[in-house]
Amino acid sequence: MNSPYHASPDVSPEWNLADIVDQLRQSREIEHKIRYLDRVRELPSRETLVTVLDGLAATLFPTHYGRCRLTNDSIDYFVGNTLNATLNLLFEQVRRALYFSEAPETHDKQNLQAKAIEITRRFAARLPAIRSVLVSDLHAAYQGDPAATSISEVLLSYPGIKAVIHYRLAHAIHQLGAPVLARLISDIAHSSTGIDIHPAARIGASFFIDHGTGVVIGETTIIGERVRLYQAVTLGAKSFPADPDGKLTKGIARHPIVEDDVVIYAGATILGRITIGRGSTVGGNVWLTQSVPPDTNVTQAKTQED
Amino acid sequence: MNSPYHASPDVSPEWNLADIVDQLRQSREIEHKIRYLDRVRELPSRETLVTVLDGLAATLFPTHYGRCRLTNDSIDYFVGNTLNATLNLLFEQVRRALYFSEAPETHDKQNLQAKAIEITRRFAARLPAIRSVLVSDLHAAYQGDPAATSISEVLLSYPGIKAVIHYRLAHAIHQLGAPVLARLISDIAHSSTGIDIHPAARIGASFFIDHGTGVVIGETTIIGERVRLYQAVTLGAKSFPADPDGKLTKGIARHPIVEDDVVIYAGATILGRITIGRGSTVGGNVWLTQSVPPDTNVTQAKTQED
Amino acid sequence: MNSPYHASPDVSPEWNLADIVDQLRQSREIEHKIRYLDRVRELPSRETLVTVLDGLAATLFPTHYGRCRLTNDSIDYFVGNTLNATLNLLFEQVRRALYFSEAPETHDKQNLQAKAIEITRRFAARLPAIRSVLVSDLHAAYQGDPAATSISEVLLSYPGIKAVIHYRLAHAIHQLGAPVLARLISDIAHSSTGIDIHPAARIGASFFIDHGTGVVIGETTIIGERVRLYQAVTLGAKSFPADPDGKLTKGIARHPIVEDDVVIYAGATILGRITIGRGSTVGGNVWLTQSVPPDTNVTQAKTQED
Amino acid sequence: MNSPYHASPDVSPEWNLADIVDQLRQSREIEHKIRYLDRVRELPSRETLVTVLDGLAATLFPTHYGRCRLTNDSIDYFVGNTLNATLNLLFEQVRRALYFSEAPETHDKQNLQAKAIEITRRFAARLPAIRSVLVSDLHAAYQGDPAATSISEVLLSYPGIKAVIHYRLAHAIHQLGAPVLARLISDIAHSSTGIDIHPAARIGASFFIDHGTGVVIGETTIIGERVRLYQAVTLGAKSFPADPDGKLTKGIARHPIVEDDVVIYAGATILGRITIGRGSTVGGNVWLTQSVPPDTNVTQAKTQED
Amino acid sequence: MNSPYHASPDVSPEWNLADIVDQLRQSREIEHKIRYLDRVRELPSRETLVTVLDGLAATLFPTHYGRCRLTNDSIDYFVGNTLNATLNLLFEQVRRALYFSEAPETHDKQNLQAKAIEITRRFAARLPAIRSVLVSDLHAAYQGDPAATSISEVLLSYPGIKAVIHYRLAHAIHQLGAPVLARLISDIAHSSTGIDIHPAARIGASFFIDHGTGVVIGETTIIGERVRLYQAVTLGAKSFPADPDGKLTKGIARHPIVEDDVVIYAGATILGRITIGRGSTVGGNVWLTQSVPPDTNVTQAKTQED
Amino acid sequence: MNSPYHASPDVSPEWNLADIVDQLRQSREIEHKIRYLDRVRELPSRETLVTVLDGLAATLFPTHYGRCRLTNDSIDYFVGNTLNATLNLLFEQVRRALYFSEAPETHDKQNLQAKAIEITRRFAARLPAIRSVLVSDLHAAYQGDPAATSISEVLLSYPGIKAVIHYRLAHAIHQLGAPVLARLISDIAHSSTGIDIHPAARIGASFFIDHGTGVVIGETTIIGERVRLYQAVTLGAKSFPADPDGKLTKGIARHPIVEDDVVIYAGATILGRITIGRGSTVGGNVWLTQSVPPDTNVTQAKTQED
Repeated sequence: MNSPYHASPDVSPEWNLADIVDQLRQSREIEHKIRYLDRVRELPSRETLVTVLDGLAATLFPTHYGRCRLTNDSIDYFVGNTLNATLNLLFEQVRRALYFSEAPETHDKQNLQAKAIEITRRFAARLPAIRSVLVSDLHAAYQGDPAATSISEVLLSYPGIKAVIHYRLAHAIHQLGAPVLARLISDIAHSSTGIDIHPAARIGASFFIDHGTGVVIGETTIIGERVRLYQAVTLGAKSFPADPDGKLTKGIARHPIVEDDVVIYAGATILGRITIGRGSTVGGNVWLTQSVPPDTNVTQAKTQED
Repeated sequence: MNSPYHASPDVSPEWNLADIVDQLRQSREIEHKIRYLDRVRELPSRETLVTVLDGLAATLFPTHYGRCRLTNDSIDYFVGNTLNATLNLLFEQVRRALYFSEAPETHDKQNLQAKAIEITRRFAARLPAIRSVLVSDLHAAYQGDPAATSISEVLLSYPGIKAVIHYRLAHAIHQLGAPVLARLISDIAHSSTGIDIHPAARIGASFFIDHGTGVVIGETTIIGERVRLYQAVTLGAKSFPADPDGKLTKGIARHPIVEDDVVIYAGATILGRITIGRGSTVGGNVWLTQSVPPDTNVTQAKTQED
Repeated sequence: MNSPYHASPDVSPEWNLADIVDQLRQSREIEHKIRYLDRVRELPSRETLVTVLDGLAATLFPTHYGRCRLTNDSIDYFVGNTLNATLNLLFEQVRRALYFSEAPETHDKQNLQAKAIEITRRFAARLPAIRSVLVSDLHAAYQGDPAATSISEVLLSYPGIKAVIHYRLAHAIHQLGAPVLARLISDIAHSSTGIDIHPAARIGASFFIDHGTGVVIGETTIIGERVRLYQAVTLGAKSFPADPDGKLTKGIARHPIVEDDVVIYAGATILGRITIGRGSTVGGNVWLTQSVPPDTNVTQAKTQED
Repeated sequence: MNSPYHASPDVSPEWNLADIVDQLRQSREIEHKIRYLDRVRELPSRETLVTVLDGLAATLFPTHYGRCRLTNDSIDYFVGNTLNATLNLLFEQVRRALYFSEAPETHDKQNLQAKAIEITRRFAARLPAIRSVLVSDLHAAYQGDPAATSISEVLLSYPGIKAVIHYRLAHAIHQLGAPVLARLISDIAHSSTGIDIHPAARIGASFFIDHGTGVVIGETTIIGERVRLYQAVTLGAKSFPADPDGKLTKGIARHPIVEDDVVIYAGATILGRITIGRGSTVGGNVWLTQSVPPDTNVTQAKTQED
Repeated sequence: MNSPYHASPDVSPEWNLADIVDQLRQSREIEHKIRYLDRVRELPSRETLVTVLDGLAATLFPTHYGRCRLTNDSIDYFVGNTLNATLNLLFEQVRRALYFSEAPETHDKQNLQAKAIEITRRFAARLPAIRSVLVSDLHAAYQGDPAATSISEVLLSYPGIKAVIHYRLAHAIHQLGAPVLARLISDIAHSSTGIDIHPAARIGASFFIDHGTGVVIGETTIIGERVRLYQAVTLGAKSFPADPDGKLTKGIARHPIVEDDVVIYAGATILGRITIGRGSTVGGNVWLTQSVPPDTNVTQAKTQED
Repeated sequence: MNSPYHASPDVSPEWNLADIVDQLRQSREIEHKIRYLDRVRELPSRETLVTVLDGLAATLFPTHYGRCRLTNDSIDYFVGNTLNATLNLLFEQVRRALYFSEAPETHDKQNLQAKAIEITRRFAARLPAIRSVLVSDLHAAYQGDPAATSISEVLLSYPGIKAVIHYRLAHAIHQLGAPVLARLISDIAHSSTGIDIHPAARIGASFFIDHGTGVVIGETTIIGERVRLYQAVTLGAKSFPADPDGKLTKGIARHPIVEDDVVIYAGATILGRITIGRGSTVGGNVWLTQSVPPDTNVTQAKTQED
């Protein structure tokens, strides 16, 4: 709401642009790694992905994230048109992302384009199933929070739901073969909710995160059904195995398995490839690096004194 | 800053839209709960609420959140016009929100409209009083942070102040009878500050939250005057009483009472309907589930080892 | 995606605007402190600063944050033009910010304008050096996260990198004499990443923050090279020395010194002017208020029980 | 392309706003006629009508005025969704316009709303027929202009076609009972093409206006099929009959009848309720106030001399 | 309504930018006249003037060009706030325009700024009087066009009224000493209405132009009260007296005087400093270069033949 | 300036969308001609062309149509960057336009893309020469209009200059082989100035059109140097030769040749392949269909009577 008539300086200073531009060019050229990447001219666009995510949300829940005044006469036209526009945008983003994950020798335009169409088409076909799981998540949120008064309220104002919708879409994209795009979607959700779920994690139905700020769920985490988390819960790795050259080994299972019906309270930190048995409860601020059997109630050691 | 001339694919693929649209319709129809909600056609709009909040901030602090070049000649015109435009928008949002909180048998348009006018008018009348409390909060921030150099800096760049302004507006709207709207305002503040204050919580004057990411203040919390919190403090519920059917009982007092002049350091977790006596200090990372008398200094057990 | 044809109320209520406007004016006039500030008519603009930061990012990494389809023929024109437009905007924001940090007796327009030009010109001259350090940070992120697949992915989707880019720019502006502007930049980064780095902190090359939500790095913190932090780490002050009048003493060194090659895991809280010796590791959730010698491995006391 | 960092004045002058606002209020109050109209709070919106016209053009010619990349899979979703959104907007504009044309005693909201729905629904039902006539106009343009190279070129760059599309839509709205709206549409076309066709005029199929600037076609004009006009042709009234009180009598047939297959060249002025017989040609700059039989070739008197 | 996912080329061609940029620089430098003007860095902004004109229209006729839902409670706040914002913008445009019309030796910033304030303040003070004359124009339009059904319709859809509102504002600005700005306003009106009125012309009350495309009213024209024009009327100069050097003499009275109650029909061309006596009628397409006494009826020679 | 809180209808009517969508589809399918064109999916975009034209104007006259505060330090960066962005956009539009003008058997994407690059590159190379001619036009306008006070005023507010800038750019594009694009540019200029110049016309340097509304200059017109036109001048075709089948023969020279130093006053109509000898003057409203020798003064027959 700043007006366009600020007082501003009387002068038009010069900034030695030519020198700085020259040094910046040299800086780009020195680093070969970065320069190489410069040749990939078309990166996925964060702004376009935000539009894609809004479009998918409108497609899945048209009366909440779409448009007012949808009628029986018009709702399918709205859904179909939004879906088409959104998939066309997504397809192009998938195509760009494939330059990152596919082997360089396959970087023929026709080939990547065909692959992007295939991925996008499969993703589209999964949307009804994704919607079904999201409905289970909505019910879990409504039933799990004493403060929730309706499912519409949950859809409109729960960051945990926003994070889960983004996760389920990102997970499908990750599985179908566009991991860079999936990471970008995770980061978009992270930025607006404070909840950081790696798209490769596997999470069952009826999942609910309350409040959520600071939650981190790592790449190889497996979560069962009807699990509930609170803010600042970490499901992380305990250590990063390195190969003999000291390089981190990528892709090893290193995050927890959380079985069905587990509740993990705020601030709990659970690290390593351990298993939290079904029906267990992990108390707030608990630090846990060993598996626990089903139906265990893990609480923090008596730590407060005065 | 993405340009409009990206290279994009040469083809216009088809996506089997008819099938997916059909399955999505079936998915909506199967779940009766969701379908019922579909009939409520006009949900509160998050985008409009953001405009309302900007307008209220401009009304309360016109030289900081409003417009440059306000003069004695013009400032009241700016405030009056902004207030009018903002209240008209708010009124409509209140009207929509009442469909959630009012009993269905009162859902006559004339009735809810009249109620929305009444709520909005009362809210408007409270704005000068809300402004006074916010000034006390500003002074608390300025005095409580050694790094603060002026009140203008606090207004411009402190997430804690942003969260408190949103909270005080949301709290008034909650009290006046539009709780769903109040929750939406909370979530807007939560998303941009990482601070999650339930609008039903009661918080006294001269309140300050520093840094703030991860702070959670629950629905039935009561906070006195001159209280200061740091990041990642939780004022939460210890357990959720369920009725004999296993359903959570809603609305029971289950969050802490924090009396005047208490300071709670980063990461402290305080759970349940306990009382932190006036003048007490709760140390960082402390886990507290029992009341403490006034002027207590609660610190964490010696937990670091090497 | 809300449509412009919502049903809305049939009435145009009146809101007693004159009364409220009058009370708000009185509220502004009562508080002398605030009223004084009203005379500073031109505050730095958060919206413009966001544009400045986007422009600087595009200048530093034109192929990632700038524009597609840059060629050898065109890239320097793009960089030069973006840099010029950005510096002109920044210069005006610096000029406004100087009213806060310069002594009132120097508030002559010509004087502050000349000073703002000087600061902006020096800042511009530092950009190539800032870029070099940021490249070291990028490599640190790529090497430090087993999940990272390319440097482009890091640039596009890592909140830690976004926070560090903002920090390094804010730090230069802080050093050159525009601290209020630097704080605003910090808060912009904090709002979108959940990472709160005071611009006065000093941080060495090859710095990496993973996940990052809830990280707080205080004003007088000193961090060496090749340091890695995880989410929710606090590098804070233990206490705030007050002068005999009870006022907080500002500017005293009160935050930790973290030497080269230290790793600090999620949730660790390190408070006070202590030193973490080079090569040390601080475990998750550790609470640390005393210095540790080089190569120490600090872990939490065994706290989990069941 | 003006940048946001213009130098601007150093002062914030006061403008005696209170005085001017007061005088403007008095000016409004003095004129009863104008004040009366003030009570009609909701006037049709020119901006919304422009959106409606764009939407209708996209519905009628989706591949030219709609969207690229329409496929058999998606085109009907696009057309249906655009049509629905457009009709909802139009319906509201019709409702507002009815306050002008309907007798005041019928200004009950429910009544006018029902009437607006009826008008909009009938208008929608006519769209396929309107499209058919427009296709005849397109062919007439393509065949009538030696410079035209394709029908797509005609659709994209002929002001005469734009004017005729607007006219045919405005005419249907005029016939169905919303004349004020129809006039607004005429003025929108007039502003961008220089062609002024009263929506009440009746114009047959295969109509073509070349160049078009300055063409005026009056309210009671009747034009047959396959008529072609050039720029600056006036089909106007010769005189305005007044009633005994000196007031103009409204609605009397006072403009020409132009029969089938007539061509009227640039600058010709044809006034009064006269008939231009079928197959006639009216030369450039001709001034004509009497009927001519079929197949007449009317040319200007030899007027150039040197 | 073009979508953002057009297919576009696969290549990023280079354009020899350096050569062309170099030649364009040389082209600028060769022409001294143009280069001199380059030093005037801040030209009036057409876009800002459009905003100013919208703001003035909203101030003068708030219920038609301003905002819906204005109440007695709010209308003066709306008018005052819009007026203030608009005058601040106008003031800056006046200041820029003065560099063109004031003698170069007065181009001291303080001096021109003070003059711009004075001009803007006087302009503001005239607005109520301008409004009164415009109300007379509105009534003239309503009474002069048999097709007009209400004054609201005239305000919303008559290009002649738009042109006259712009003219009366431009004329005041011209008289007060900012002729370049006045010309820009004329051109804005010309572009959207096809009516070209020089702002220096003097036009009495109750003025009406019907249809209007192609009307030209020259710099030294004087028009009395209750005059009515139709489309394509020219009130122009017959010849341009040159000084002995062959340069055109500027500012000499060279356009017609049109006395009260004259009607001039479409296409009439009236040239030179002649007088059309009060109450006369000039027929369509008439070519007139000599004065006519009052109450004359000028018609075209019988020119049509067949 | 319409507010977003209009009252609107209480109902969401249904519009029988399925029926209308179905009929519209049938309407498209019946007309083979139109359906054929449907397959050309990517038409040139009028909106993008407007951006291209703004960019070219900014490149040619950066201080008037570009940006304030250009310095020696920055102006070439601005010009180079704007030129690059603009040429990239233009290239894509040229590529799309070639589908209209190139023979169908050449519609291979690679081929048309290469041709579009070639056309755009040649066009870019001509810009400095186009600028030189436009400077001659500017001087002609300044010297030809007694009301002009500076060349900046001419650049900012003369529709004739806008039309000529568009014409000279469109003409180059037409010559280089993208006629459909050239027509679109003509229509864009026509819409905002009322001046309709066919891009194939050939016009010499120092050309000036005053006022301009209604001017039409046909496809095969040839105009010499230092020619001046006033509003409503037509340089048109007298008749359209048809081939034996009755089809219009396209491309035959059928418009006037106007030699150097000719002045043509308002409303003159000059038709057919005739020659107006150098130095002649054609009076207002003259109707001319025969050649005139050099230095002729053509005036209208005495036509006014009373």
